[in-house]
Amino acid sequence: MADEQTIPIPSVKRLPSYLRIVRQAKENGEKSISATRLASDLSLKPIQVRKDLASTGVEGRPKTGFPIDELIVSITHALGWDNSTDALIIGAGNLGSAIAAYDGFSAYGLRIVAIFDKDPRKIGQRIGGLEVLPVDTIYQYIKSHRVTIAVITVPAAQAQATADMLVKCGIRGIWNFAPRNLRVPEYVVMQRTDLAASFAVLSVKLGRKYREETEGDSSEEEINA
Amino acid sequence: MADEQTIPIPSVKRLPSYLRIVRQAKENGEKSISATRLASDLSLKPIQVRKDLASTGVEGRPKTGFPIDELIVSITHALGWDNSTDALIIGAGNLGSAIAAYDGFSAYGLRIVAIFDKDPRKIGQRIGGLEVLPVDTIYQYIKSHRVTIAVITVPAAQAQATADMLVKCGIRGIWNFAPRNLRVPEYVVMQRTDLAASFAVLSVKLGRKYREETEGDSSEEEINA
Repeated sequence: MADEQTIPIPSVKRLPSYLRIVRQAKENGEKSISATRLASDLSLKPIQVRKDLASTGVEGRPKTGFPIDELIVSITHALGWDNSTDALIIGAGNLGSAIAAYDGFSAYGLRIVAIFDKDPRKIGQRIGGLEVLPVDTIYQYIKSHRVTIAVITVPAAQAQATADMLVKCGIRGIWNFAPRNLRVPEYVVMQRTDLAASFAVLSVKLGRKYREETEGDSSEEEINA
Repeated sequence: MADEQTIPIPSVKRLPSYLRIVRQAKENGEKSISATRLASDLSLKPIQVRKDLASTGVEGRPKTGFPIDELIVSITHALGWDNSTDALIIGAGNLGSAIAAYDGFSAYGLRIVAIFDKDPRKIGQRIGGLEVLPVDTIYQYIKSHRVTIAVITVPAAQAQATADMLVKCGIRGIWNFAPRNLRVPEYVVMQRTDLAASFAVLSVKLGRKYREETEGDSSEEEINA
């Protein structure tokens, strides 16, 4: 039995994709699935898939591949998604509202249980079935509901103060969508998703492609007719 | 004058954050801004900020720092955000709707101009001011509106077919939110944002922290990959 403590982060990032395909296969009544099939579905190399799955402790069988029920258990456990994890959102602006309303997180055991804001005009509004709560009630909420994960979607200028406040309230994992690097104590886990940074990379790469084409020999394919 | 072709991708990812702060400073009536101030606001090292800004071609001045107007022009140009870029969304599910309704993209020159779906129940609905259009009208739309960027938010199983179709229609840049690696011709730029993968990393790191604490021995510090 492998210890999930040893799974490398790049493998961790691929596990949700395997889990999604395996669950779909189960719904289709399949009993086992091969690494080759997973690799093909995800445009990965089979050796990579076998390594990733082995790191979760599941064992493949000759010919048939991986037993689907075992695979779901081992991946889910490796991700710590055995039980639904409650999380709250701080910041009921556009992005916070979008995340609160996005029900795709439940597939990975993430349940958004509350959304907070300090703007009196937003408090009391309903977003994705949740009522926006005043941020000064957050300490009480975290203590009574034992929430450990928070999603930060406040404006960048308020992000550090928000993180500090969350840490004081006992939050241990922060998913930060604000475009800022936040300082937290070593015992708190910080994961950042910066949509502006992603789009910047797309824009710049696209600009480079265009320049390559106009500057270089355009022996490449004809471009959008 | 630096050529933006040479800006390293990690620098590209930081440029939107600089731009945001510099624009804010301009709104506050400031005329110049120092690398130290930017570094402090973003928890970066000043040397890093200076390198990043130099790569856009702007020059700082002793004492006063960078002239704000020049800085905005050089960063915007380096990112290719001089003009607003039109993009369309394929997939009017929860995530597609969230992205369509999120108006934060306009700050980086990204304008969502249309959203498409194949589900007849979704077609005609309004999301973020846009009417959901039938996906079989997409070729005509792209040709007549000269859109070059598409955001994919369809279910994973349909993502590759969607990308193939978009490429045939002349799309050159794809921002893929579907949890799948998509194959596209070499002349198309693909940028992927996988929210499940981000949350997986947060979950696993959080689990490791808890185990470190309960097991007492935190000698297994090869974690923060």
